[in-house]
Amino acid sequence: MHDPFPRGFASDNAAGVHPAVMAAIQAVNHGHALAYGEDPVTARARAAFDRLFRRPVATHFVFNGTAANNLALMAFAKPHGAVLCSEVAHVLVDESTAPERTLGMRLKPLRTVDGKIDPGALEAALGQGHGVHGALPVALTLTQPTEVGTVYTRAELQVLIDLAKANGLGVHVDGARLGCAVAALEADPAELLAGVDVLSFGGTKQGMLLGEAVVFLNPALGAEFPYWQKCGMQLASKMRFVAAQFEALLAGDLWIANGRHANDMAARLEAAVKDLPGLSVAYPRQANAVFVKLPKAVIAPLQAETFFWPWDEAEGIVRWMCAFDTEPSDIETFAAQAEACLIRS
Amino acid sequence: MHDPFPRGFASDNAAGVHPAVMAAIQAVNHGHALAYGEDPVTARARAAFDRLFRRPVATHFVFNGTAANNLALMAFAKPHGAVLCSEVAHVLVDESTAPERTLGMRLKPLRTVDGKIDPGALEAALGQGHGVHGALPVALTLTQPTEVGTVYTRAELQVLIDLAKANGLGVHVDGARLGCAVAALEADPAELLAGVDVLSFGGTKQGMLLGEAVVFLNPALGAEFPYWQKCGMQLASKMRFVAAQFEALLAGDLWIANGRHANDMAARLEAAVKDLPGLSVAYPRQANAVFVKLPKAVIAPLQAETFFWPWDEAEGIVRWMCAFDTEPSDIETFAAQAEACLIRS
Amino acid sequence: MHDPFPRGFASDNAAGVHPAVMAAIQAVNHGHALAYGEDPVTARARAAFDRLFRRPVATHFVFNGTAANNLALMAFAKPHGAVLCSEVAHVLVDESTAPERTLGMRLKPLRTVDGKIDPGALEAALGQGHGVHGALPVALTLTQPTEVGTVYTRAELQVLIDLAKANGLGVHVDGARLGCAVAALEADPAELLAGVDVLSFGGTKQGMLLGEAVVFLNPALGAEFPYWQKCGMQLASKMRFVAAQFEALLAGDLWIANGRHANDMAARLEAAVKDLPGLSVAYPRQANAVFVKLPKAVIAPLQAETFFWPWDEAEGIVRWMCAFDTEPSDIETFAAQAEACLIRS
Amino acid sequence: MHDPFPRGFASDNAAGVHPAVMAAIQAVNHGHALAYGEDPVTARARAAFDRLFRRPVATHFVFNGTAANNLALMAFAKPHGAVLCSEVAHVLVDESTAPERTLGMRLKPLRTVDGKIDPGALEAALGQGHGVHGALPVALTLTQPTEVGTVYTRAELQVLIDLAKANGLGVHVDGARLGCAVAALEADPAELLAGVDVLSFGGTKQGMLLGEAVVFLNPALGAEFPYWQKCGMQLASKMRFVAAQFEALLAGDLWIANGRHANDMAARLEAAVKDLPGLSVAYPRQANAVFVKLPKAVIAPLQAETFFWPWDEAEGIVRWMCAFDTEPSDIETFAAQAEACLIRS
Repeated sequence: MHDPFPRGFASDNAAGVHPAVMAAIQAVNHGHALAYGEDPVTARARAAFDRLFRRPVATHFVFNGTAANNLALMAFAKPHGAVLCSEVAHVLVDESTAPERTLGMRLKPLRTVDGKIDPGALEAALGQGHGVHGALPVALTLTQPTEVGTVYTRAELQVLIDLAKANGLGVHVDGARLGCAVAALEADPAELLAGVDVLSFGGTKQGMLLGEAVVFLNPALGAEFPYWQKCGMQLASKMRFVAAQFEALLAGDLWIANGRHANDMAARLEAAVKDLPGLSVAYPRQANAVFVKLPKAVIAPLQAETFFWPWDEAEGIVRWMCAFDTEPSDIETFAAQAEACLIRS
Repeated sequence: MHDPFPRGFASDNAAGVHPAVMAAIQAVNHGHALAYGEDPVTARARAAFDRLFRRPVATHFVFNGTAANNLALMAFAKPHGAVLCSEVAHVLVDESTAPERTLGMRLKPLRTVDGKIDPGALEAALGQGHGVHGALPVALTLTQPTEVGTVYTRAELQVLIDLAKANGLGVHVDGARLGCAVAALEADPAELLAGVDVLSFGGTKQGMLLGEAVVFLNPALGAEFPYWQKCGMQLASKMRFVAAQFEALLAGDLWIANGRHANDMAARLEAAVKDLPGLSVAYPRQANAVFVKLPKAVIAPLQAETFFWPWDEAEGIVRWMCAFDTEPSDIETFAAQAEACLIRS
Repeated sequence: MHDPFPRGFASDNAAGVHPAVMAAIQAVNHGHALAYGEDPVTARARAAFDRLFRRPVATHFVFNGTAANNLALMAFAKPHGAVLCSEVAHVLVDESTAPERTLGMRLKPLRTVDGKIDPGALEAALGQGHGVHGALPVALTLTQPTEVGTVYTRAELQVLIDLAKANGLGVHVDGARLGCAVAALEADPAELLAGVDVLSFGGTKQGMLLGEAVVFLNPALGAEFPYWQKCGMQLASKMRFVAAQFEALLAGDLWIANGRHANDMAARLEAAVKDLPGLSVAYPRQANAVFVKLPKAVIAPLQAETFFWPWDEAEGIVRWMCAFDTEPSDIETFAAQAEACLIRS
Repeated sequence: MHDPFPRGFASDNAAGVHPAVMAAIQAVNHGHALAYGEDPVTARARAAFDRLFRRPVATHFVFNGTAANNLALMAFAKPHGAVLCSEVAHVLVDESTAPERTLGMRLKPLRTVDGKIDPGALEAALGQGHGVHGALPVALTLTQPTEVGTVYTRAELQVLIDLAKANGLGVHVDGARLGCAVAALEADPAELLAGVDVLSFGGTKQGMLLGEAVVFLNPALGAEFPYWQKCGMQLASKMRFVAAQFEALLAGDLWIANGRHANDMAARLEAAVKDLPGLSVAYPRQANAVFVKLPKAVIAPLQAETFFWPWDEAEGIVRWMCAFDTEPSDIETFAAQAEACLIRS
């Protein structure tokens, strides 16, 4: 029988649930607990985030990444506001009109270099005074690692955060795959995110069944978040089952280990394919994704072997993404498929 | 050691996950599957809803009940519209401003009798022509069973649905606990819901970890629902884990069995307490909840023994709710606690 | 030839423009002036409001009453908020879904006595704690004079304002016809409105062609109003023509004189009809409107003579409204028509 | 005494009211008329638009251009939709977040050449399929004449309209200064706008005190517009005073004559300055605006003589705009001032 669930390189959200996370779900499945987060598991998971950042932060658990990003940005919402983001930001490209509908604000895309916001573009956007006639920048959102698999260094973050703060903007980080960045930089999460006001901390892509954390590193900004969460349709009733997953993910830094494994697999994949004829690496491989440019005729045949998503169809760039459960044998198989397709073409 | 998760009567969403549902979650946790519902488990779960209603319906899985209700109602949204609902409707009382923010419409509460919308009140609301100056009724939403534990008969539904349809309104049913109503009426779900356009079919309160189904019984109305789901921040990436739960819930009509059990437990609870001194039953007990009026001084002491929520503090009415996992021994214990508190008072 | 514009009692917004206001429009129609309020006429009109309240207030000019009310309430907006209003409030009954769409909030209607909010109802609404699950009251809006032509005394206002303030709510007054109230009470506007945060000061119904003022009596609350005005689509480019009208309206307290005249005409109308057979006055006549209950069969024939609007068709209550330009002869004619219709019926 | 209202080149909305329009306002200022457009003047003004387009169109009068554009686009609104516009579109650059807040949709800017949308950019945007994850293009909006004073030929419009229609998009034209384009092209308005679904027909910039018309050339699309107008806070009560202005503006094609005069003045201005040393014309002068590039040091001194707005401060481009009331002597004076400033620099 054909395996209906073959591992591939489509996305880290094609993976399943890490065994330790699944075990945590089962472990809390007994008896009754108060709904909506008033349960002891949720309290423990929040405490785990306080420990991670070595001080009290305000943590809330929502369902998916779109919600984490947009509800986090409500901390900076003004009726006439704009959120500055990269031109390839997930919040811009992959979250439909959720920003407009949830925040009532505009997204202003900024030019990027290798997926990272160009400080010059940020500076220019901040200087575009237009009084009441234009949308007023109120926040900057960054993705770490970026959507093209690159990682901001702390110094690069500092420049952008300083510019934002100097202009009165709030700073949000979309950390759907933050563990990959932390592993890649061998960074301390609290130090890496110094100056950030609020973080979308990924659950789903880091090994959970479902759930993301909105972590207010600046806790005062999140004082009304529970209300936004409710009217934003993101308050789970059986919260213990989301919280337990985060408790497992943070225990022993499982999320960083998962990120490191995915990074290592991506490095291995890059090494296996980078010298194949006709293939070129499109962006520096710094986290768990390998973006390559392929002859267009090769894409469909290779997808037929092992599915993956195109990234830029006009340019022939595709994305290969590793997950916490990618195995070396997956890479060997896929690299061989790629080689065969390239040679045939 | 004190059990941190004692079963009680706070709500059916205080219960955990039914074992068959949990088993289904684990059963799909292997390998990779395409995200966002493009996986075989989601297809199977949708087919199960088609079988339930004996025809093709359009089914989508969202995270929670607030989202199910409000995104379902988007099918009828107009910028100037109003949704008619009962004065005790969950969508009105328990979903913060999600209706206003998601739909951009107004809720117009209608007078109820035992939690059921009074047809006279509906008729009056439909006749309030005020041209462009007022909000225009576009949909009627009903809760079955109601928020006070009563159940509309098919004949009662027919009257309301006919009135709505005759005035061009869409009809939505909030079926967070639909299994309780189906069990109570010994009804066929398709017949019970004839004339309904779209249904919020409960997952969480019927035994799941998390997840609700929006079922377009009038499938054409839901053609753009996948877009609304995305911009409404309700599209799960690892959808197979939500879908698998619904597959388990519908298999062998587990959801109805769960509802029947909860109803039976509520009947047993009512029988055990209805003759206690100072206690009176507040609404006809027709599903899985018992609403009773208590001397106010009794409420806090009894909550301290086994927690439950007040319903109407001014009137001294409280709600006791049974779940799929309530056991007769829970009721014996609780009834004894209630009796002791009442006698002491 | 039939006069296409006969004076009647339909509404004060059926009247035209007061001659002094029209003269002011013409007086500023020469040359060029910077748009969007950066002109000397707008500065002068704002200064006139400062003089009216004997201290610096923050005044902005919008197009109509719906905008004045809803943009004023933005000062208190929270995503999860509710605005408490009377059950007959213009903002609730006559402004479509503008509140939901502009504010993203819910209106919570409160019970009234003769059109005035019952303090007990306000107190009850403030006590309905429901955590994140309900909409949170953030503001109280009052209409002065009320929609049924009654006038809050200063003492009545004080009770409501004190309750609101004690619970952290902002206070807004819809003063579309404020001059009628000021005239009726022989009040000082600043004293009458002590404790009010923001006022919709009527232009259109007080004698202008078009335009309303949003006056922040608590100026700090309106610091970002110019932005809300712009994104709320209420910023006039040729602002001088709106501002000039307000300058004329405030000069020599023309707005109060207009209100007094309209009140006097309403008193005269009430006197002329109150003893007619079959007619009874429905609400205390305190400003420029007379609400009467008529035999239903009389309504259409009398409307055919001189048009007016029904108020409560079920009850047979109609509204007769006087304006700044109502003349005693209009009343004599209309009273005679009413008498004839009543006698014929 | 210094004239507080000197004519200049800041904008056509710095001008006053055309005498014929002002006369029309005064002519309807007698007696009472039903509010909200149920008056004979409004009916006559609507009929004038039917005559202009030689068939029944659906015309509604709103307060300003931001409202005209955004309420017109409601005809195409979907919760998950996007409106394609030029990168210099007024709706994008000068209307704050009104699009996001009114429509709940995203604006997608398209590359322009001389202010006109590049058909290649439109085609590329239409092909960016991203399923439910991206915002779905639902409408194209064009400005005629453009924001940089150029005019689409009919053939250019045809290409864009055909592309939009072939992809199921609605087409809107922002005609705030349509008369300038009609005059420049010596076009028939109905022919020029063939294929357009809805038009913002400018009032303010074409000589009125205030008011814009939303004209549904595809009348079925506007069937619910009166509701949108009300909940969009754009329904005037004393509508006759807005309608009368449009009646005057359309009588004898005054709007086209006004546009032609402004165009002629701009041509004269261009001729007077184009050979000045250090000055270059930035965009083809085709309507009533002259955009020139100046040495940056010249801008402030020249603004001090006669005020105008910068357009692109980084590039030193400024905008000089003529109005219906610009006189040749204004141009002579200003050209002399410009020459003097340039020579001094």
